[in-house]
Amino acid sequence: MSARVKTLFQKSTTAVDVILVKNGAAPFIDDNFFYVTELTQGLFEGSAVLLHPDGACDLLVSELEAESARKATANLSVYTSTEQYSTLLKHLLGTATTVGINGGGLSYHEYIKLKEMFPQVAFVDLSKVFIATRMVKEPQEVEHIKHACRIADDTMAALPDVVFPGMTECQLAAEINYLLQSNGAEKPAFDTISSFGKNSAEPHYSHGDTPLAEGDLMVCDFGASLNKYNSDITRTFVYRSARQQQKEMYDTVLQAQRIACEMIRPGVVARDVHQAVSSYIDSTKFKGTFIHSTGHSLGLAVHDGPGLTAENTMVLQENMVLTVEPGVYLPGIGGVRIEDDVRVTHEGIEVLTKSPRTFTELN
Amino acid sequence: MSARVKTLFQKSTTAVDVILVKNGAAPFIDDNFFYVTELTQGLFEGSAVLLHPDGACDLLVSELEAESARKATANLSVYTSTEQYSTLLKHLLGTATTVGINGGGLSYHEYIKLKEMFPQVAFVDLSKVFIATRMVKEPQEVEHIKHACRIADDTMAALPDVVFPGMTECQLAAEINYLLQSNGAEKPAFDTISSFGKNSAEPHYSHGDTPLAEGDLMVCDFGASLNKYNSDITRTFVYRSARQQQKEMYDTVLQAQRIACEMIRPGVVARDVHQAVSSYIDSTKFKGTFIHSTGHSLGLAVHDGPGLTAENTMVLQENMVLTVEPGVYLPGIGGVRIEDDVRVTHEGIEVLTKSPRTFTELN
Repeated sequence: MSARVKTLFQKSTTAVDVILVKNGAAPFIDDNFFYVTELTQGLFEGSAVLLHPDGACDLLVSELEAESARKATANLSVYTSTEQYSTLLKHLLGTATTVGINGGGLSYHEYIKLKEMFPQVAFVDLSKVFIATRMVKEPQEVEHIKHACRIADDTMAALPDVVFPGMTECQLAAEINYLLQSNGAEKPAFDTISSFGKNSAEPHYSHGDTPLAEGDLMVCDFGASLNKYNSDITRTFVYRSARQQQKEMYDTVLQAQRIACEMIRPGVVARDVHQAVSSYIDSTKFKGTFIHSTGHSLGLAVHDGPGLTAENTMVLQENMVLTVEPGVYLPGIGGVRIEDDVRVTHEGIEVLTKSPRTFTELN
Repeated sequence: MSARVKTLFQKSTTAVDVILVKNGAAPFIDDNFFYVTELTQGLFEGSAVLLHPDGACDLLVSELEAESARKATANLSVYTSTEQYSTLLKHLLGTATTVGINGGGLSYHEYIKLKEMFPQVAFVDLSKVFIATRMVKEPQEVEHIKHACRIADDTMAALPDVVFPGMTECQLAAEINYLLQSNGAEKPAFDTISSFGKNSAEPHYSHGDTPLAEGDLMVCDFGASLNKYNSDITRTFVYRSARQQQKEMYDTVLQAQRIACEMIRPGVVARDVHQAVSSYIDSTKFKGTFIHSTGHSLGLAVHDGPGLTAENTMVLQENMVLTVEPGVYLPGIGGVRIEDDVRVTHEGIEVLTKSPRTFTELN
């Protein structure tokens, strides 16, 4: 873990004595707590980790988490009361006067509590440093993501067996989640999207009571979460016989995805990839129907940092992991999205999700 | 919704011109956004709602959420760019100089952005006001929780049908989650706990690869999430033949729960309930084995505010909804927990979860 910690200090433009990552109560748990401790299990509500420039970590956890915390390579302190927590944190912080924090993962309320506890300390928001450091994945992180991708692929492969006429979107979501867990996921990476027919025209739609009807587009967008890392995949099917327009939508999106995949490599600017995809779709009959960004970074969080958006001037680097997910959405008719997870390699990309992208009519 | 909004202003000890609830990116989505808008679907990343003392709401959402936002009784503004978001928010905030925020649901990073956008505004952290207001549920909220409880009960009732010898904790968790969704939940309310044998002695343990063996204690702790509201139930079974010690653990926990349920009514101090439960368990042979609090508030969040803890001096009021979940935990042997959700009534409690509490050996 010390390499990551050292990188955080190196990337910080403001010199800080130590870096403090503090979890609140669920759902305000900072992914970076797991990033720096490399712990892969547990919730660690209220726990804190203090990082030192030499890569050392002090871990401060409640009695209930002590056993789980021993899996980390860190100096462990255990508190049994709020008072003891304060005493131990003061001791650990010692004479530090400038303390880095992750303002993106800490609630304002928690920040105020820290300020009250350490009125003399200058806290420096290192949100951007955490994001930049996490964007480039280490081999172990890539392995975790690949594992999550395999589970997503296994789940996608089993979908034709669970689809039946008249099933609702909710039922399909339940089947997908069951498959994800049966295939080894600890949980779905996010609220599974299974949208049928015209509902599929809304990219943010999750699932409802709509029953599956012949000729429906079916957008299935889900991922596996395991060891705190995530996958994220989308395939769009047509239930039974597809219409010509649906095939054209599919071909357009598939070609848009190919364009992105062929462009992605170190040195390319993120927004240029989005621009190429967007321009291509706008050159077809589906002009104006691609209404979101081309992809996002993926890792400990499903949205793990800046991605392939219209405004992102970030230069792509080797070992960034991104989703590539163009789509076209026709209100009142339906949508098509195809999403894969890719690792930026020295020369291009490694596609981590292996599910076939051929146009498929489910029966 | 205006009643809730008015209450927030009334309970605030610092006078504020308006109250701003701002969502960040997931997981920094503030439950209070849904509390004040009464929206029951969607994520609303980045959206904001501005509340006025007369109960009026201004809702500011991105284009992608506009359709969903129309379900709220609010003045709707839609932004299509970061720049437009700023312009609209400045317009909505108008001449307000003192603005209440929920510091418990806003990241420090988002707070800094607000401060930069409105340097002349004094922001007041109303976290405690939000918590206090939400503690007492309105009839519609109770109906949502009851619905989630029915789904949890239906799921618990089906458990005997899905248990088989040698199944792992993960497999049972997958079955529970599938049942929850099949019974109408949008998703599990939290990471389902299914712990077998000695693993059940760890209250925070979720699930792993441990297979079910004869004579195991099985702690099943889960809930349904629907319309943004949650249920939370635990039952402990023994797989096949129980030992005398397991029966004694069960009887002790059941009696501890009865003591709590008989005490809870308006006017009682929260910590006194915990004290009574704790004292009772400490008067048995299981002294010292009840290692968490007796319960928590339940609602839009699973942990929806202060509960029946050792330190909480809150006075119980009608229409608070609480979990009552004593347990005993014997390291190396196993644990028993029994958890129900109750509404504080005029005279006592209404138990919202209806699953039987009789000692059960599953076969």
